[in-house]
Amino acid sequence: MTDNRVVVYKGTGQVAVESIDYPKLEIPKEVASHFGIAQKAPHAAILKLVTTNICGSDQHMVRGRTTAPVGQTLGHEITGEVVEVGEDVLFVKKGDICSTPFNIACGRCRMCNEGKTGICLNVNPARAGAAYGYVDMGGWIGGQADYVMVPYADFNLLPFPDRDQALDKILDLTMLSDIFPTGYHGAYTAGTRTGSTVYVAGAGPVGLAAAYSAQLLGASVVIVGDMNAERLAQARSFGCETVDLSSDGELVDQIEKITGEPEVDAAVDAVGFEARGHGEGADEAPATVLNDAMTVARAGAGIGIPGLYVTGDPGAADDNAKEGTLGMRLGLGWAKSHSFATGQCPVKRYNRGLMNMILAGKAEIAKAVNATVISLDQAPEGYADFDKGAAKKYVIDPHGMVKK
Amino acid sequence: MTDNRVVVYKGTGQVAVESIDYPKLEIPKEVASHFGIAQKAPHAAILKLVTTNICGSDQHMVRGRTTAPVGQTLGHEITGEVVEVGEDVLFVKKGDICSTPFNIACGRCRMCNEGKTGICLNVNPARAGAAYGYVDMGGWIGGQADYVMVPYADFNLLPFPDRDQALDKILDLTMLSDIFPTGYHGAYTAGTRTGSTVYVAGAGPVGLAAAYSAQLLGASVVIVGDMNAERLAQARSFGCETVDLSSDGELVDQIEKITGEPEVDAAVDAVGFEARGHGEGADEAPATVLNDAMTVARAGAGIGIPGLYVTGDPGAADDNAKEGTLGMRLGLGWAKSHSFATGQCPVKRYNRGLMNMILAGKAEIAKAVNATVISLDQAPEGYADFDKGAAKKYVIDPHGMVKK
Amino acid sequence: MTDNRVVVYKGTGQVAVESIDYPKLEIPKEVASHFGIAQKAPHAAILKLVTTNICGSDQHMVRGRTTAPVGQTLGHEITGEVVEVGEDVLFVKKGDICSTPFNIACGRCRMCNEGKTGICLNVNPARAGAAYGYVDMGGWIGGQADYVMVPYADFNLLPFPDRDQALDKILDLTMLSDIFPTGYHGAYTAGTRTGSTVYVAGAGPVGLAAAYSAQLLGASVVIVGDMNAERLAQARSFGCETVDLSSDGELVDQIEKITGEPEVDAAVDAVGFEARGHGEGADEAPATVLNDAMTVARAGAGIGIPGLYVTGDPGAADDNAKEGTLGMRLGLGWAKSHSFATGQCPVKRYNRGLMNMILAGKAEIAKAVNATVISLDQAPEGYADFDKGAAKKYVIDPHGMVKK
Amino acid sequence: MTDNRVVVYKGTGQVAVESIDYPKLEIPKEVASHFGIAQKAPHAAILKLVTTNICGSDQHMVRGRTTAPVGQTLGHEITGEVVEVGEDVLFVKKGDICSTPFNIACGRCRMCNEGKTGICLNVNPARAGAAYGYVDMGGWIGGQADYVMVPYADFNLLPFPDRDQALDKILDLTMLSDIFPTGYHGAYTAGTRTGSTVYVAGAGPVGLAAAYSAQLLGASVVIVGDMNAERLAQARSFGCETVDLSSDGELVDQIEKITGEPEVDAAVDAVGFEARGHGEGADEAPATVLNDAMTVARAGAGIGIPGLYVTGDPGAADDNAKEGTLGMRLGLGWAKSHSFATGQCPVKRYNRGLMNMILAGKAEIAKAVNATVISLDQAPEGYADFDKGAAKKYVIDPHGMVKK
Repeated sequence: MTDNRVVVYKGTGQVAVESIDYPKLEIPKEVASHFGIAQKAPHAAILKLVTTNICGSDQHMVRGRTTAPVGQTLGHEITGEVVEVGEDVLFVKKGDICSTPFNIACGRCRMCNEGKTGICLNVNPARAGAAYGYVDMGGWIGGQADYVMVPYADFNLLPFPDRDQALDKILDLTMLSDIFPTGYHGAYTAGTRTGSTVYVAGAGPVGLAAAYSAQLLGASVVIVGDMNAERLAQARSFGCETVDLSSDGELVDQIEKITGEPEVDAAVDAVGFEARGHGEGADEAPATVLNDAMTVARAGAGIGIPGLYVTGDPGAADDNAKEGTLGMRLGLGWAKSHSFATGQCPVKRYNRGLMNMILAGKAEIAKAVNATVISLDQAPEGYADFDKGAAKKYVIDPHGMVKK
Repeated sequence: MTDNRVVVYKGTGQVAVESIDYPKLEIPKEVASHFGIAQKAPHAAILKLVTTNICGSDQHMVRGRTTAPVGQTLGHEITGEVVEVGEDVLFVKKGDICSTPFNIACGRCRMCNEGKTGICLNVNPARAGAAYGYVDMGGWIGGQADYVMVPYADFNLLPFPDRDQALDKILDLTMLSDIFPTGYHGAYTAGTRTGSTVYVAGAGPVGLAAAYSAQLLGASVVIVGDMNAERLAQARSFGCETVDLSSDGELVDQIEKITGEPEVDAAVDAVGFEARGHGEGADEAPATVLNDAMTVARAGAGIGIPGLYVTGDPGAADDNAKEGTLGMRLGLGWAKSHSFATGQCPVKRYNRGLMNMILAGKAEIAKAVNATVISLDQAPEGYADFDKGAAKKYVIDPHGMVKK
Repeated sequence: MTDNRVVVYKGTGQVAVESIDYPKLEIPKEVASHFGIAQKAPHAAILKLVTTNICGSDQHMVRGRTTAPVGQTLGHEITGEVVEVGEDVLFVKKGDICSTPFNIACGRCRMCNEGKTGICLNVNPARAGAAYGYVDMGGWIGGQADYVMVPYADFNLLPFPDRDQALDKILDLTMLSDIFPTGYHGAYTAGTRTGSTVYVAGAGPVGLAAAYSAQLLGASVVIVGDMNAERLAQARSFGCETVDLSSDGELVDQIEKITGEPEVDAAVDAVGFEARGHGEGADEAPATVLNDAMTVARAGAGIGIPGLYVTGDPGAADDNAKEGTLGMRLGLGWAKSHSFATGQCPVKRYNRGLMNMILAGKAEIAKAVNATVISLDQAPEGYADFDKGAAKKYVIDPHGMVKK
Repeated sequence: MTDNRVVVYKGTGQVAVESIDYPKLEIPKEVASHFGIAQKAPHAAILKLVTTNICGSDQHMVRGRTTAPVGQTLGHEITGEVVEVGEDVLFVKKGDICSTPFNIACGRCRMCNEGKTGICLNVNPARAGAAYGYVDMGGWIGGQADYVMVPYADFNLLPFPDRDQALDKILDLTMLSDIFPTGYHGAYTAGTRTGSTVYVAGAGPVGLAAAYSAQLLGASVVIVGDMNAERLAQARSFGCETVDLSSDGELVDQIEKITGEPEVDAAVDAVGFEARGHGEGADEAPATVLNDAMTVARAGAGIGIPGLYVTGDPGAADDNAKEGTLGMRLGLGWAKSHSFATGQCPVKRYNRGLMNMILAGKAEIAKAVNATVISLDQAPEGYADFDKGAAKKYVIDPHGMVKK
């Protein structure tokens, strides 16, 4: 039996690489029993990881801001080579290198039928929607590993058309599993189109991906706000305007300086529930980003919210925030006829088109988010650096397949 | 000069009918000077009111829940006969009976070009969007009157094709100025379509109109929740299911009893910022309805919010609510990938289609909302009864033109 | 081994009921070899037919207007009870009564991902899209039978929530496999919405279903045109206006008589390539219906084309028509900025919502199309009567399960 | 009285510059009398032309392929400085430099309300929709002139925010009156989005604008087909792939060579009714481009048709084409579930966003279409060169305002 290693949550601020069983063509027992279906999974495939990235949402768990138990396996940004398939995997073949959407979806329920793969009804006993290696997301084993099992493989996997080309562009393609589509979803659901001015709150990897996607969608100006100078520099590297929220003064004024108007056509919240107030040393203020978005978005604008908000946050500052209740200035949003789009990005809706852009040489997302390759053993270090605000997107390369 | 009377706000809980000047073809001085345009309005028309309704949103002012000054003229649900037109009114003719959207719009700005007439950029110095007879909405004279001036008449007025037919159906047609499109907008932006199950919070006129519209949009089941038994009976009169929130137990359980599932496909908030908690004697709890909506709406659902939320509520229970900040459980909405649509209904988007339904005998909205005709002098009484929760929609008939 | 009978095409004008093998959990050999996948189908289910309808498009084959070979099995309107499932059928269970979309779709390709199940890429070697019992559609066995195999059963089947309720409403539910969604698709893609006036060309079952669907979509007036008086009477039975194209004079004049305007907001072609010119004894004129639609549809209208147009019609009157080339008056359509929607209805997009309407008692489609039950042995007679223009929709009841 | 000159059609193959009256604030008598409105136009403005382009659709008239009478004034691509406004022009000011959509629209009818300004109901007695200087389009005076009158100026004009910036970018901005939005409309209605492969038929200015727009919309690959080598070189200059239809062999094979697949995701017909068959010396074959589009567009694709098709073509090769009837292979389109979007581009839907792109330095359309400045006196020469296939877009500069 081949060895298998995976990154595991070991308590607040701690992760480790541990050995686990090589994956089986089986779904989690809790999923099988809840839905009354077989655990044996002829629809599943085993992937040998080519790349697997560390995500900002993993940090929520590691910081102790979720109910993740010690021992939780991690990793939902999975790109891999198919090494084994079940009997009902017909179209994906052994040897294919594939991107795996972080959302696990059955492809057979009403939500999947409607393209809403982020809220599949058949993969998580606790709620709609599932993911690999995430608390409250169905018990699926994480993919910051050597090998991982992907259920409903014909539905979930996106094979790259050519192996060599895929390996050449692997640092771009690895972003298709989550942040590139997630950022795109934010910009798209905010209503970005040809000529729009767009404000993106947050210059972490998802914010950068949202900014980059806004450009692909035809934005005339993209403004990124954050309090981390290094991350803002990263945003400027591909043509964004930036606002340093810790020092630049009122956001509306900064926007007016840039565009000549105090408002933008579309706004994206790429921060989520761990938002802070503005200025050096500001405390956590979970509705800050949303209320900023309503302030700077023009009447009639859309607000895309790829940033994660949760129903339970044990580490929150107050009781309301602990259950995901925020002080939203909805009166303002209503007066401006805003619309709000929330939730996990349904990756499948966008990954094929974005893949085509990468393969055609028209989307250099790896550079935009500063993809940085590390080994699986370096994962704990990557988590720590990322948590400190490194302007990097860590890409784990478990088998040394990424070209130097 | 013809006499003109109008309903005026006289302080908390008080309205009166007073005489004012006969309208001129002029826009408010504050609008003209703010936008640097002429006060003289060749684009305007004078309407002799045929009907003009009392709206729930008028009640917010009369209850002292806004910053409306004493002396504020009232009335934005206007149906009238054109008796005078400016030189640049070309397509609407004297003698036409017309519905007037409550939103005042120029027809010439970017928002009007996009069909977003609820947030016209040229009619209100204070913000995007305007209305007749409403605080903070541009200073336009109210239309619970004998006569009223309508600017940009070719753009704003919807002439009925036949005068006699119009007078026959006037109690239905009078609902086109606000509540029928507003209710429809709520149901539509919530994503109601053929076969949907829909929950409507609030059985006031807008809630009833939303429920009726959900039926027109093809809902398979419409469930209306309120704490007013008489209004719920009104909802049942046209085939809705109802839940009495003051006594029927948990909303999810009631919904499950009705549909077999604890969730609906779409939810409409037709209550707004003066929402109360559930149960007899519950206090005001401005986010209750929104949080209920997130609880009962299925993953992936839309939530339409025609109910009014404001940026300033001097009568609110706490400081947050005073500035329109609510404790929304956004974590829940996010987990369910909900989308939220807010703001004034852009009446023009819907009024022609709904007029066609009324004229074809396929939309008996007057009956659904229990239209009740009163004279202009009876307006203060109508306000008082409506505030007490009468399950009626009061239609003022200033000139005795409504057939008995 | 259980007996199995199926309706078979025996040459121009002839069908017969013949015995064939009981279905296996296998896909057609030609599909398997073309796509390089296993013939064995763990994703498939066997259905015992509850009902299976004769379709107008079957008539094209029987009239010799296609390249269907003698021996072609027939029947794509399938409703049945699941009697056997493969190992990878997880959510549909034995005993479920299900509607089966006539389009066969894999649920795993790009088109299925986008909801375009009418043009699945993995089920037909000849082109995108497949169907049961139809020439050039992948070689799948027809379902006017005792038993039939359905591949990708979790994706394709729509189980009814309650068996007894399903059997009570079976004559309505049987229309979900094809004509109800197909008619709805026509009305929907034509742009029908609340208040629209709609013209439907053709009063056969699809035309009637389109007219009925236009009503569900909120049409204020639905006008149906045909040359068959009995079918037009059927359209009037549920509130449509009608025009007898063989005798009533110019269509535009008739429409103006009905609505006061010579144009409609939306038009549906429910006739297809075997269209005839107007008036008694008119010859075939394949573009007549499309050109009529452009004539009567207002500027900006949509034209929905659920009526079938083919790439090869050996029985056509001229060489152009034989290859599916028609004399369309596109200059007229262009001048009016028309848009045109063609192709097989993707049944899954609509069948769940329409099922909900039937189960809630809000869609009596069986009555609208005059559902008429016959036994499997009576199928040849049904074909013949339908071809003569009977205003009936024949529903075959192979096992006597339909309540009298 | 200031002098005024305009380009006039003088018979097949001939245009001349002639003197006409300085424009008045009046609409054409035929429009006023048909709609029963005043000829006097307080809503109108007079523009001093800054630039005014020669359009491919002007060529249809000059080639004698329409019913344009001798004496028809020409020019509908108008960019100018406002020099006079009527009393009801409130928001556009004297001195503003503005783009004028070629479609004349009232801003007050149902179609304008829906954003369908290409089919305004109030500006042309003959049909829906009007334009400046065009046969059968309402009798509005052409704008290849010194001065021109624009009705409903607040609605029709798009003022540029800054005069100096506008004059700096005038060769790009001049394309906003027609070809840039028209090309964009073609690409957009064909369904182009992030990652699409797109085929554009025709490398004239509209085709090039469609190709450029497809890139803005996120196409991964844009392929342009034509028979004019110089125009194809122009397409390659901004990154398109090209196919020379006169020599390169079968279009599907060429597409497969370029993309690896014989089909594209979206197709645009930027040729229209004067299409020719392929190969050197091929005859006119008006459906060629449409049939090609259906051949190369994948199942489920959209086909955008900005190319002009007409209802009357006196110079057509046969009687069908003379009335705009074409031999379309609709059977093929139907089998592939294609949708077709036709008609005049509603310029207002796109011109603001595209202006923003130009002003932000993100859309260099002038270079893409090879804008070439000429004087008004050189217009006849420009027409002649353009007709010969020059790969240039001629921009007339009547007052010498374009910087060299």
